[in-house]
Amino acid sequence: MPGNSFGQSFRITTAGESHGPGNVVIIDGVPSGIPLSVDDLRPDLARRRPGQSHIVTQRDEADEPEILSGVFEGRTTGTSLAILIRNTDQRSKDYSDIKDVYRPGHADYTFDAKYGFRDYRGGGRSSARETTARVAAGAVAKKFLSIAVGARIVGYVVQVGDIRAEINDPAAVTLEQVETLPNGSPNIVRCPDPAAAARMVSLIEQVRKEGDSIGGAAEIVATGVPAGLGEPVFDKIKADLAKALFSLPAVLGVEYGIGFGCAEMRGSAHNDLFMRGPDAGDGSPTIRTHTNRHGGMLGGITTGMPIVLRAAVKPTSSLPIPQETVTRNAEPATIRTKGRHDPCLLPRFIPMAEAMVAIVVADHLLRWQGQRSAI
Amino acid sequence: MPGNSFGQSFRITTAGESHGPGNVVIIDGVPSGIPLSVDDLRPDLARRRPGQSHIVTQRDEADEPEILSGVFEGRTTGTSLAILIRNTDQRSKDYSDIKDVYRPGHADYTFDAKYGFRDYRGGGRSSARETTARVAAGAVAKKFLSIAVGARIVGYVVQVGDIRAEINDPAAVTLEQVETLPNGSPNIVRCPDPAAAARMVSLIEQVRKEGDSIGGAAEIVATGVPAGLGEPVFDKIKADLAKALFSLPAVLGVEYGIGFGCAEMRGSAHNDLFMRGPDAGDGSPTIRTHTNRHGGMLGGITTGMPIVLRAAVKPTSSLPIPQETVTRNAEPATIRTKGRHDPCLLPRFIPMAEAMVAIVVADHLLRWQGQRSAI
Amino acid sequence: MPGNSFGQSFRITTAGESHGPGNVVIIDGVPSGIPLSVDDLRPDLARRRPGQSHIVTQRDEADEPEILSGVFEGRTTGTSLAILIRNTDQRSKDYSDIKDVYRPGHADYTFDAKYGFRDYRGGGRSSARETTARVAAGAVAKKFLSIAVGARIVGYVVQVGDIRAEINDPAAVTLEQVETLPNGSPNIVRCPDPAAAARMVSLIEQVRKEGDSIGGAAEIVATGVPAGLGEPVFDKIKADLAKALFSLPAVLGVEYGIGFGCAEMRGSAHNDLFMRGPDAGDGSPTIRTHTNRHGGMLGGITTGMPIVLRAAVKPTSSLPIPQETVTRNAEPATIRTKGRHDPCLLPRFIPMAEAMVAIVVADHLLRWQGQRSAI
Amino acid sequence: MPGNSFGQSFRITTAGESHGPGNVVIIDGVPSGIPLSVDDLRPDLARRRPGQSHIVTQRDEADEPEILSGVFEGRTTGTSLAILIRNTDQRSKDYSDIKDVYRPGHADYTFDAKYGFRDYRGGGRSSARETTARVAAGAVAKKFLSIAVGARIVGYVVQVGDIRAEINDPAAVTLEQVETLPNGSPNIVRCPDPAAAARMVSLIEQVRKEGDSIGGAAEIVATGVPAGLGEPVFDKIKADLAKALFSLPAVLGVEYGIGFGCAEMRGSAHNDLFMRGPDAGDGSPTIRTHTNRHGGMLGGITTGMPIVLRAAVKPTSSLPIPQETVTRNAEPATIRTKGRHDPCLLPRFIPMAEAMVAIVVADHLLRWQGQRSAI
Repeated sequence: MPGNSFGQSFRITTAGESHGPGNVVIIDGVPSGIPLSVDDLRPDLARRRPGQSHIVTQRDEADEPEILSGVFEGRTTGTSLAILIRNTDQRSKDYSDIKDVYRPGHADYTFDAKYGFRDYRGGGRSSARETTARVAAGAVAKKFLSIAVGARIVGYVVQVGDIRAEINDPAAVTLEQVETLPNGSPNIVRCPDPAAAARMVSLIEQVRKEGDSIGGAAEIVATGVPAGLGEPVFDKIKADLAKALFSLPAVLGVEYGIGFGCAEMRGSAHNDLFMRGPDAGDGSPTIRTHTNRHGGMLGGITTGMPIVLRAAVKPTSSLPIPQETVTRNAEPATIRTKGRHDPCLLPRFIPMAEAMVAIVVADHLLRWQGQRSAI
Repeated sequence: MPGNSFGQSFRITTAGESHGPGNVVIIDGVPSGIPLSVDDLRPDLARRRPGQSHIVTQRDEADEPEILSGVFEGRTTGTSLAILIRNTDQRSKDYSDIKDVYRPGHADYTFDAKYGFRDYRGGGRSSARETTARVAAGAVAKKFLSIAVGARIVGYVVQVGDIRAEINDPAAVTLEQVETLPNGSPNIVRCPDPAAAARMVSLIEQVRKEGDSIGGAAEIVATGVPAGLGEPVFDKIKADLAKALFSLPAVLGVEYGIGFGCAEMRGSAHNDLFMRGPDAGDGSPTIRTHTNRHGGMLGGITTGMPIVLRAAVKPTSSLPIPQETVTRNAEPATIRTKGRHDPCLLPRFIPMAEAMVAIVVADHLLRWQGQRSAI
Repeated sequence: MPGNSFGQSFRITTAGESHGPGNVVIIDGVPSGIPLSVDDLRPDLARRRPGQSHIVTQRDEADEPEILSGVFEGRTTGTSLAILIRNTDQRSKDYSDIKDVYRPGHADYTFDAKYGFRDYRGGGRSSARETTARVAAGAVAKKFLSIAVGARIVGYVVQVGDIRAEINDPAAVTLEQVETLPNGSPNIVRCPDPAAAARMVSLIEQVRKEGDSIGGAAEIVATGVPAGLGEPVFDKIKADLAKALFSLPAVLGVEYGIGFGCAEMRGSAHNDLFMRGPDAGDGSPTIRTHTNRHGGMLGGITTGMPIVLRAAVKPTSSLPIPQETVTRNAEPATIRTKGRHDPCLLPRFIPMAEAMVAIVVADHLLRWQGQRSAI
Repeated sequence: MPGNSFGQSFRITTAGESHGPGNVVIIDGVPSGIPLSVDDLRPDLARRRPGQSHIVTQRDEADEPEILSGVFEGRTTGTSLAILIRNTDQRSKDYSDIKDVYRPGHADYTFDAKYGFRDYRGGGRSSARETTARVAAGAVAKKFLSIAVGARIVGYVVQVGDIRAEINDPAAVTLEQVETLPNGSPNIVRCPDPAAAARMVSLIEQVRKEGDSIGGAAEIVATGVPAGLGEPVFDKIKADLAKALFSLPAVLGVEYGIGFGCAEMRGSAHNDLFMRGPDAGDGSPTIRTHTNRHGGMLGGITTGMPIVLRAAVKPTSSLPIPQETVTRNAEPATIRTKGRHDPCLLPRFIPMAEAMVAIVVADHLLRWQGQRSAI
């Protein structure tokens, strides 16, 4: 089976390239009766949009979504929901000189190895432009999660180069903090630690001036997710979340909770101990853990504690400085990428990562509800 | 859809619990004509087997596989292949006192939240005992990969606690080095750096004496994998490999190539530059990269360079020392796990991780061969 | 993806051949908490069992099931449930002479075309012996349906050769009528019209004496299925039911409701008109149709009226009389099948067909419950 | 999993309603390198188009397709291919009076039972308008099959009411005969028996005048399909073909080869005997059967003989004459459908059925090629 679908009960299928007519997503499994309009899709598309600030690519796309199906009189019908986002600023002439030369760090060579030929305009299907479809679908997932169980997904930048943010409580970070600085101006780097954010912006400006790019890391937090989501063996929710984040371009590492830090720890220091939590609305007790090194998941199933994930994102591979490479025939060549690229992928990565996390949580919520109600 | 299947074209479905009659795997998609017998399955099952050395759990299981179907006259038939591994040393009395108390770090609470009740004998389906079925399937995948394209999967321990191995060239590590020390004795910790291996064994012995456990990390390398495997969007091979490793118990982080190290790097230092490689057998040139920070995958598709993955594994949650917790009714309780547990999961994690990587590579090889031969 | 799994939310995966160690099924998606033991599996396996009467094959198999996983303290755990039925009477010597000769009407030639070689012992994977695994899974599905919504699946023979049963009300036929004649003796042909049943038995005895075989047709009825099951486009429940029945060996046709008879009808005579039905338990009205030419499904979704399906089953292809054929090398040959075969497949087809219908209805019930509870 | 996808290796996912912006299909798995443009899609869309003759619905739709992705420089890229067909003649005012009344024979009641509410404009997602997306995808499948193995799919009408066509050799019927009468005028009923075609047209004209509708049957033939396609157990190609045809609106029965006629036959008369066929291009012999009662499939796998399927299609449920029914609240009501409807579905059913057969054969061809090339 080819790889353009994701999810089981909340399932997205996408199509589209960087320089074709547009990107489309079909979402299958959206429950009926959810209020939905393009206004629900626009905010996250705007957060992902190129040209949103001076530290991202200056390609100019409106990224205006059209709902093609699945909504009637303002509510979802339960049948498949399709969204189209047309490409407008395609300028494919920028890419003609890479037709026969492999850009380092890109999928040019691997697409040729796989398909025998490729759409060389801006990476075609391998371009991060395909994530517009994911972000639109993620907005639908977020709406569903919010209405169904009050869950909320927030992502933010925790590292750019060697600058690291200090985040005391991941579960307390708000969308407001991610999008707006305390002084009211836009938080263009999406780091909720204002001091770190300022230094990150400076670093990105500097690498851009030098014709270079810089990597970083993001943290994504899901709160309000009920205990019991996830499957016990292969479809552990941690496994599906990891796949979701690794399916995004440029991600080289994913961890949750204490993550790679667990390798140095002893069990006695690592285990999160259970405790009685606040009473549920119906008078019954809840169960919590004192700490959250387990990142909200045990045995691949949610515990009700916040889900906390981190992803490492490599520096943009496209560089305006010359790099050595080869042609399709393995002849030596030099390449300077002339397109409009992000000096750092992280600010625009945030809505993409949130979308994928929202889609996985929505999917497992639906799967769980089916099982739970069975008898 | 429930979560007991993995893979598309090479697809495994498993069943079985820690203390039930046994574990079974059905492998669907094994090509016909591959020589196969239980002798192909025994070595990896022995590497995973409890009781194999003094630094692992002393539960005594023969782990003898029975092939129930799919092999005729010593060759695979192409139809579904089932393997059964019976449990023999079940001693379920060890577990009766955890019936109503949640073990920290385990899936007891989450299984109750999901299913409403649980098989409390040794974790039931959440026990790592289910990985016997995966390891048997992985041995079939390895055999297929070896015959079809000469690919090879080798895993080894790179970290236990704060002890880190020095591995100069991951692609050069051999199964021999992982299993046997230079002096000919068994490499019970499966670290191919002999000096580090000795210190790791000492550390594991020490934590066991203290009634504690210790975490660590493993590296898994796939060599001989052709360029072109993987799907461009959601089923990137990096995403499927990450899901495969995260689906294993106790894994809190996965990275490939330079991994989380990419966050600090600039693009100019990070990109692996393409070069002409050695001529292929047919006189045509091959394409390689000078370095392998990309861990053998670009755009989610293999480049032909070695695939290099790392996984962080938490310290065993079961501890013989008392830990605070709660009962099903959220009443305070204290628990001391009396079962037989690994003080460090890493030595037995290696064949599990190799199996999952082999299954993913086999799956994508079959998917790719179907697409490639289409026209 | 290979083809040894069926269903989405209630999903079965099978393995096994006619003359291997046994047949196994893994059922994924059985809700937790259902009382289940081998006693629930034995009755349908006995109805399918060879050697059950003088008008079926005399191969002697106990068909004793073993539950390998998924049941704890007499209840399903919600995790994958595996059942093994070992083969005991294999006598593979019966089949050695068909190693290189293609039996007419069998899958010998097509397996060779597909796989390059085949397990020639009794058809291997193409033998109807694989349906033991389906029947065991079907018994689990029936138990779930009965407990969850009180639904019931009954099948029976409506035609053998030119003998047709008269069934006034398919929804009124009971398992008792199918299994037992009014005089208390076993209804070995499973036709609830006693007069027709007697003539069917005579016809089957006659064709067996003549070294021949005879075709027939079965009707399967599901009652108590709630309205609303099925998906609107490709996974219409009528489509999944048809696939389920066509996946059984020897089925050449499937219809539901008025079936092929619709081709001659006008819309004004064909439409089933809606009416108010009896009040539901909660005082709200129900909706029914006056007639049931639609066989319980409209737009691929159940209406709450009885689901009525028919399947045409070809005469057994294995014949003890000589038939002309070719060898693997296309050389002319003559074959006389010496194995033990059913002169008519219908009596043993009934539990297989019921099982497949039960699995589809269980699957769609679970899918629907997930969607319904979402908001 | 919801039900808007079909196929495994050649997989289509659709969205769209009768009166929304349009219908879209994403095809995943189209091999790279196939020449493709909208000109390949237009002919079958025109054969399905409303308003094509006086015996079909007079709704006026251009059904002009737009390829949104997956084609570059005139060839398929191997990545997901999306096609959009916008609705233009929506006139949703025609449907406002059926908002609360259930049309007999339609999915109004079942959609309400399933989703809790519905898009009442022309059936919404349950309208046959969704088949535009299938027909577009089918045209892609046909192009692939033609290029890859020279296979050809042709469907035609064999019955309207009690008028039956005489077809001597299904495999010899040409698209030309289906589309054009011997006198050169369009064969608007798509029956290749000209005498029967004339009577069918008269009958359809008559029932339309009477405010009624009429059922019928279609035959679909696939020639040039290699032996070896199909999976041995659940995904028998006969099962997938049946599901494909039953997934179309109004289909109440499907059979292949001798079909329901097998129920009356003896094995000695039913079996198709194997014979040596013409030599293959490489000098090796082929294997054929003398007769084709098996309809090109044995054991669920193709034999290389023509695949011959028949489907029964009910009379259109929408009638301009008054019919009794109930409202959503089960109150008695009378309905007269005022929309523009086909008096007989068969002429426009042909391209839909061909499309579904082409999609299944393409899917199994890709699955088989993957398995075949594995070693």
